[in-house]
Amino acid sequence: MSSILRSFIEVPADSHFPIQNLPYAIFSPKEGGPPRVGVAISNHVLDLALLEEEGLFTDDTLRNKTLFAKPTLNDFMALGRPAWRAARARLQQLLREDEPTLRDNLELRTRALRLMAAVQFHLPATIGDYTDFYSSRDHATNVGVMFRGKENALMPNWLHLPVAYHGRASSIVLSGTPVIRPQGQTAADDITPTFGPSRLVDFELEMGFFVGPGNALGDPIPVQEATEHIFGLVLVNDWSARDIQKWEYQPLGPFLAKNFATTISPWVIPLEALEPFRCPAPAQEPTPLPYLRADQDSSYDIHLEVTLQSEQMASPLVIARSNFRNLYWTMSQQLAHHTITGCNMRPGDLLASGTISGPTEDSYGSLLELTWRGSKPITLPSGEERRFLQDGDQLTLSGWCQGDGYRVGFGEATGKLLPAISL
Amino acid sequence: MSSILRSFIEVPADSHFPIQNLPYAIFSPKEGGPPRVGVAISNHVLDLALLEEEGLFTDDTLRNKTLFAKPTLNDFMALGRPAWRAARARLQQLLREDEPTLRDNLELRTRALRLMAAVQFHLPATIGDYTDFYSSRDHATNVGVMFRGKENALMPNWLHLPVAYHGRASSIVLSGTPVIRPQGQTAADDITPTFGPSRLVDFELEMGFFVGPGNALGDPIPVQEATEHIFGLVLVNDWSARDIQKWEYQPLGPFLAKNFATTISPWVIPLEALEPFRCPAPAQEPTPLPYLRADQDSSYDIHLEVTLQSEQMASPLVIARSNFRNLYWTMSQQLAHHTITGCNMRPGDLLASGTISGPTEDSYGSLLELTWRGSKPITLPSGEERRFLQDGDQLTLSGWCQGDGYRVGFGEATGKLLPAISL
Repeated sequence: MSSILRSFIEVPADSHFPIQNLPYAIFSPKEGGPPRVGVAISNHVLDLALLEEEGLFTDDTLRNKTLFAKPTLNDFMALGRPAWRAARARLQQLLREDEPTLRDNLELRTRALRLMAAVQFHLPATIGDYTDFYSSRDHATNVGVMFRGKENALMPNWLHLPVAYHGRASSIVLSGTPVIRPQGQTAADDITPTFGPSRLVDFELEMGFFVGPGNALGDPIPVQEATEHIFGLVLVNDWSARDIQKWEYQPLGPFLAKNFATTISPWVIPLEALEPFRCPAPAQEPTPLPYLRADQDSSYDIHLEVTLQSEQMASPLVIARSNFRNLYWTMSQQLAHHTITGCNMRPGDLLASGTISGPTEDSYGSLLELTWRGSKPITLPSGEERRFLQDGDQLTLSGWCQGDGYRVGFGEATGKLLPAISL
Repeated sequence: MSSILRSFIEVPADSHFPIQNLPYAIFSPKEGGPPRVGVAISNHVLDLALLEEEGLFTDDTLRNKTLFAKPTLNDFMALGRPAWRAARARLQQLLREDEPTLRDNLELRTRALRLMAAVQFHLPATIGDYTDFYSSRDHATNVGVMFRGKENALMPNWLHLPVAYHGRASSIVLSGTPVIRPQGQTAADDITPTFGPSRLVDFELEMGFFVGPGNALGDPIPVQEATEHIFGLVLVNDWSARDIQKWEYQPLGPFLAKNFATTISPWVIPLEALEPFRCPAPAQEPTPLPYLRADQDSSYDIHLEVTLQSEQMASPLVIARSNFRNLYWTMSQQLAHHTITGCNMRPGDLLASGTISGPTEDSYGSLLELTWRGSKPITLPSGEERRFLQDGDQLTLSGWCQGDGYRVGFGEATGKLLPAISL
């Protein structure tokens, strides 16, 4: 513990934001002022636009640029790893306990560090395209068993490629944004639709990564180079209306069932901060085709937790615990697959993992699985039962990597389900 | 013919761009200069940025604004129909034969009107989200018969809702951009994939519309108000790799098979220009649910044509003739359905129709249908046969409405298929 990097700002051991993390977000002071880039340290936000203005970024990749007085991270994401590494090194230096620049300059320090409670967060990037994968074997198997039986649980393609679909970018919202119960067509008999509010609104525990530089149309990203294009990760809740999905999804996949809202957490955790928590991904059998063959030591040990709080409950209940390392397909494989046809990635594109379910019943990442299509309802401390989400339910994802005496955390992605509007 | 509106600029009878059309595009002069908004008249582009600078837009909705000295149409699209109507009326006035402002000011006229051949076109809008529908009954039936047999040709949901999926916005390219044959996984036996260039590259004849003002998240667009959100239409070629699609698409829909390129035409034809060609859409039985019930007199009589030219051919061959009015679901229904869950539309979003096939064998909008999965190859004048596209093939979509002595045309959406790159 003696050699651990420490900040002059006090960081509780269970804080998500020690000097080992330094995630990025877009914030604006509640008292007013334009959105800009900030970095988290303990319960504070460090204003990078101000540090930039003060000339404190001196690396060649960063100086004389306007990167942080911007309402999105896209320009910074586009610069690539050398710039990300330089910014991170400089920020760790400025925040460490033995560095006087900020620590001993009360005036600068007061202007540059704001309490998180005193700022408003915004979406971290303009998301040009959003893609959602389906990369947890346990999740795909569970859904397959429910809908097609045990023998045909996994589709024949699943072990050969990371299945995915294009999602809706416009309805990606920041943690804290209420979610309105969607209305639409459902058909209990699979033949005759009726119209009304969805009865089966669910969450999906996911994570997603933001793309850095990206690639030109026609020029795939090789799997070995993919991590150079991964800026950082967030928590993702892919809200889903199961009854709408069931009726609409053949033959072109989920559409309205997924496009009413997708919640992401405000802090983007840099891949560098996750490096100490790198771990093997599950062994892949059959061996994937060469364009998907990569170092499989490229998953991350990220604890994930889901809580639910109904309006009758005084505090949230943990309903699921999972881990990012449960994912069968790695981020590098997802990116290599997505671009193998030549599809171009742009800085700020978001690629989500799909529901991250683990092998045990308490590690499932959706109510569909946790209650097994509603057949095993969850009993809440209030005495209520839940098969799917009810109006007023607050659903929160959180996640963290456990270091030796510190946590690299993701904060949370939360949203409350509001009643359907009357049309 | 005597009362027809005429321009002081000569317009041949078969031109796509008479004074009755006045479509919008983004262009930049080939000799240099920033991209800006232009309007087509005969073989000329009228520079709206210049007219704006000259103060020639005097309507309250337009004056003292920078709308046309912009690299995209998004800001103009966001203004809504009153502004679109005012701009169109003013442009028709400035271009008519009896109006001297431009006609008799040689200096202004020379600066404001450029030959199309002397400019470069750009994508008309920043497309936040791209959605592709599946709204031709003949196309859905043909595909259904091929893959599921005659009895189950249409899925049970098809007659109740306009089926759609989210597409990839980043790879939408302008007419003229070459398309590289994609590589990926295919599995002839549906079990064991191999990697290589797609062997079954196809086109899809579609049209698409750009969204105007749009809606806030949670606030659906009623079907009766939908046309107020339709700025204008373009031609769309949804290039498709059928063998990649077949292996990947279960259960989440088409992904890589469709995301290597989508070609659109440069000119956006305003809905107002299509008004004289409005016609009934096909009768809908069963009657849709109330949120999809609209005036069915809201389709448009737009002739569509597809040509193919191989490298051995001296001129293109027409391989299909169809019509926009073949579409079962209307644009208003598509927009109402897309937003019924609360999904938000932003100015510049693109909603495409899906393949527009007609009832006869020469009106099918894809090679998949025209050659019936390759079983009835097309013989080209060069003696070559085509089941699917070969390297070097140039595929061109065009479309027009036939008026009395004039045409309101869409120009063309063209692209040449290039060989796969070596990885």
